Amino acid sequence: MSTNKLLLRTINGEKVDRPPIWLMRQAGRILPEYREVRASVENFVALVRNPELAAEVTVQPVDILGVDAAILFSDILVIPEAMGLPYKLVEKKGPIFPRTIESETDIENLIQGQKAAEELDYVYEAIKVTKKKLAGRVPLIGFAGAPWTLFSYMIEGQGSKTFSKAKKMLYQSPRASHQLLDKITESIIHYLKNKIAAGVDVVQVFDSWAGLLNADLYNVYAIPYLRRIVNAINEVPVIVFSRGAYFSMEELIDLNSNVVGLDWTMDPTRFRSQFGQEVIVQGNMDPCVLYGSMDLITSKARSIINALGGQHIFNLGHGVYPDTDPAKVKELIDYVKSYRYKRNKKISQGVDNE
Amino acid sequence: MSTNKLLLRTINGEKVDRPPIWLMRQAGRILPEYREVRASVENFVALVRNPELAAEVTVQPVDILGVDAAILFSDILVIPEAMGLPYKLVEKKGPIFPRTIESETDIENLIQGQKAAEELDYVYEAIKVTKKKLAGRVPLIGFAGAPWTLFSYMIEGQGSKTFSKAKKMLYQSPRASHQLLDKITESIIHYLKNKIAAGVDVVQVFDSWAGLLNADLYNVYAIPYLRRIVNAINEVPVIVFSRGAYFSMEELIDLNSNVVGLDWTMDPTRFRSQFGQEVIVQGNMDPCVLYGSMDLITSKARSIINALGGQHIFNLGHGVYPDTDPAKVKELIDYVKSYRYKRNKKISQGVDNE
Repeated sequence: MSTNKLLLRTINGEKVDRPPIWLMRQAGRILPEYREVRASVENFVALVRNPELAAEVTVQPVDILGVDAAILFSDILVIPEAMGLPYKLVEKKGPIFPRTIESETDIENLIQGQKAAEELDYVYEAIKVTKKKLAGRVPLIGFAGAPWTLFSYMIEGQGSKTFSKAKKMLYQSPRASHQLLDKITESIIHYLKNKIAAGVDVVQVFDSWAGLLNADLYNVYAIPYLRRIVNAINEVPVIVFSRGAYFSMEELIDLNSNVVGLDWTMDPTRFRSQFGQEVIVQGNMDPCVLYGSMDLITSKARSIINALGGQHIFNLGHGVYPDTDPAKVKELIDYVKSYRYKRNKKISQGVDNE
Repeated sequence: MSTNKLLLRTINGEKVDRPPIWLMRQAGRILPEYREVRASVENFVALVRNPELAAEVTVQPVDILGVDAAILFSDILVIPEAMGLPYKLVEKKGPIFPRTIESETDIENLIQGQKAAEELDYVYEAIKVTKKKLAGRVPLIGFAGAPWTLFSYMIEGQGSKTFSKAKKMLYQSPRASHQLLDKITESIIHYLKNKIAAGVDVVQVFDSWAGLLNADLYNVYAIPYLRRIVNAINEVPVIVFSRGAYFSMEELIDLNSNVVGLDWTMDPTRFRSQFGQEVIVQGNMDPCVLYGSMDLITSKARSIINALGGQHIFNLGHGVYPDTDPAKVKELIDYVKSYRYKRNKKISQGVDNE
């Protein structure tokens, strides 16, 4: 079986023939094969905690959809749980934390760093099982929630349109906020290092609620912690995806992570003209494009690939939505895999201009 | 009683001593006086439909907080209701439409234009009562939801994190989408004209869900309809507030509405350097700043005023959040009212440079 190194070669800045493609949330949600596995256990968290089954659903999109990378089936909230705040995932409502952080004592009592990361053996075990199943076919991505996003759940206790309780803490208690962000960051770093030791080839940090802040807050309460993570992880490439953080794009690029994720609101052409051709980016098709016709899907995919050029990992700009037709996803993947970059364009343009 | 014309003078581009201030959602939510009135009726919609009480809560923030403008207490969803889709507001959940648009026949059957606008006599009556109560003290703002935002509720039937059903319609059925947006736009125009005839001095169009689209979609499914509204309303100034639409900021400015609303994610300094000093803007303090200390509030307010300069209406970058302390709001308002622009700065700089 041949080894697909397209993702890693793209991240290394090598010349490749086409962008690699994988989709956020490709493991889970859309595949009937996933739903079958999901139905065999009591709840979502039980699936996350079962290494054999987590590995099975991680590999499904590689087998069924033909993506260029696997991403370990897991949840960003395993870190708050390992730090001492367990949660439930309530169908159609999202995560609920029975206990949240309400005082400095609560922050002091949190488990942190390697001690928190040690709680997550089932994740490292799932990585080992997955690596065996993949047998080198595609690289395996491991992920973690970003400090601000985990902070916001640990304060708020559930999803929110505004996360105003978490933002209130930033404005009211900067010192305690930094203290909590520090503990979360240390835990994330140990967690990612353990994941790397267990075998993941790339890590991605998801800052899902970045867009609720602004440059004022993001550059103080998120960027420094992301920087600490990026600086600490040297073993494998790091992808940073901050959804909605258009206002801190320069700061995100300056982190010098290996790849910057773009959400679907970011115009690819404008991104390149503002931030240059060199940044390796991942994204950023609107997941809702997958509701459209094949013509629409290929035309949107083509224009993103053309705009972003060779330094690009194709992905959606958000996780694939649950009601997406897997056949459409497969067609998108096949289209991107059939795409070939035009070569020597620069040279022929040079000739034209003489 | 003296007449406060600061808002209208600022919109007219006159030199003023300080920015006028009012807050989105100032009528309702935060004032105990509002909650008392709200408790006297069965539900939120009953309050919206009661001209005497709607007028009473509209005037409350003028009396209690001292804002420079009143905004009529109402709801953006009165238009879908007038078009034939009634809704309920469920506490802590948001609006629910028992029936939604599911077919082209549903679109054809909608009430539209002046016929829909005529259903909203209680709003025009509330304006007349409010104008009497205000007795010219401050101008009265009337508002409407923008076509895309109303469209998204009429398709989705309730709030959503992604509004993926509404976006699916844009990608799957462009023709039907335009047909529905057209009907909504016609209804909004008639509604706003009736409001103006009843006495409002300024109108604001709220595109609350703009940020779920991107430039691709927004410039096709939102901007042209906003343009139609802006072009149709010549009687009074128009404020357009598209939350999250940073990707279409140029197009929003090119609408040539009188004022462009900025949400809290938009950096004021960067806005001025990218889009110039001339655009009259409204905004954009993060509502969560009001959870902070008075020092924090005044320092954030000052830096926004300094960055945005004289062409500025002070406001939050989102509606004031329900758990905000009215005393803090009052202190913010007093601070902005005590602020004075520095004059002759240009001249003295000229002298310095000689």
